[in-house]
Amino acid sequence: MPVREASTSWQGDLQTGSGIVTLESSSAGQFPVTFPRRAGEPEGQTSPEELVAAAHSACFAMSLSNGLSKGGTPPTSLSVSAEVTLDAPTLTITTIALTVDGVVPGVSQEAFAEAARAAKEGCIISRALAGVPEITVEATLLEG
Amino acid sequence: MPVREASTSWQGDLQTGSGIVTLESSSAGQFPVTFPRRAGEPEGQTSPEELVAAAHSACFAMSLSNGLSKGGTPPTSLSVSAEVTLDAPTLTITTIALTVDGVVPGVSQEAFAEAARAAKEGCIISRALAGVPEITVEATLLEG
Repeated sequence: MPVREASTSWQGDLQTGSGIVTLESSSAGQFPVTFPRRAGEPEGQTSPEELVAAAHSACFAMSLSNGLSKGGTPPTSLSVSAEVTLDAPTLTITTIALTVDGVVPGVSQEAFAEAARAAKEGCIISRALAGVPEITVEATLLEG
Repeated sequence: MPVREASTSWQGDLQTGSGIVTLESSSAGQFPVTFPRRAGEPEGQTSPEELVAAAHSACFAMSLSNGLSKGGTPPTSLSVSAEVTLDAPTLTITTIALTVDGVVPGVSQEAFAEAARAAKEGCIISRALAGVPEITVEATLLEG
């Protein structure tokens, strides 16, 4: 059963303090974080919401690739974006907007849109994010 | 209202394909991902679950720092780990285990544990992850 660990080392209070986020299981990266850069412009700093967007975009891409392959039309390429909106007054993630452009030989626009909808509903990270009121997906089929 | 974007560029099917995850809003990093490295040993590759762990550890650290400060005992430091367990048969995140070691002048063990519990319940990412059946927290107060 895969277990993945990450850590945050934090110093100080919320407004003036700062942290270092480390991808422990992979050692793939370390990132400074602060609350002002989370709530305002990122100025080169990642944030929990951007990391959720990264997780969701990757999971959705894998799930859609799998669904298309099972349907007999594996993708050549999928370009996925995830946009996470944080409502500042309520400090709640209100929307995640997924968009995907795909090069998928042999698939119809309808079948591609349906596979994207199924991946949005069924992917591991979508199901974990059940507390997010709105997750949307927009799927566009490109010429190969 | 803060919006954060990340993307995944994916090529091929699930088992033999691969992707590149990009933190778009911050430009803080790019990471290769594959399904075999997600489901098996990471071998240096991040995964959606590790990225969720990173997001959760950072959000929990900020929320706990804020709660302790509001209680009149801002932390000197908080060392937070998040472990995300993916149940392979059901492809579901079943548990996220948070642990925190804190150096917090003037706080009691009881007040620290209560603040950690409140941050676990209330932090933005915990609330978004409502589909995860079990989120636990273990809080240890260290000597300053």
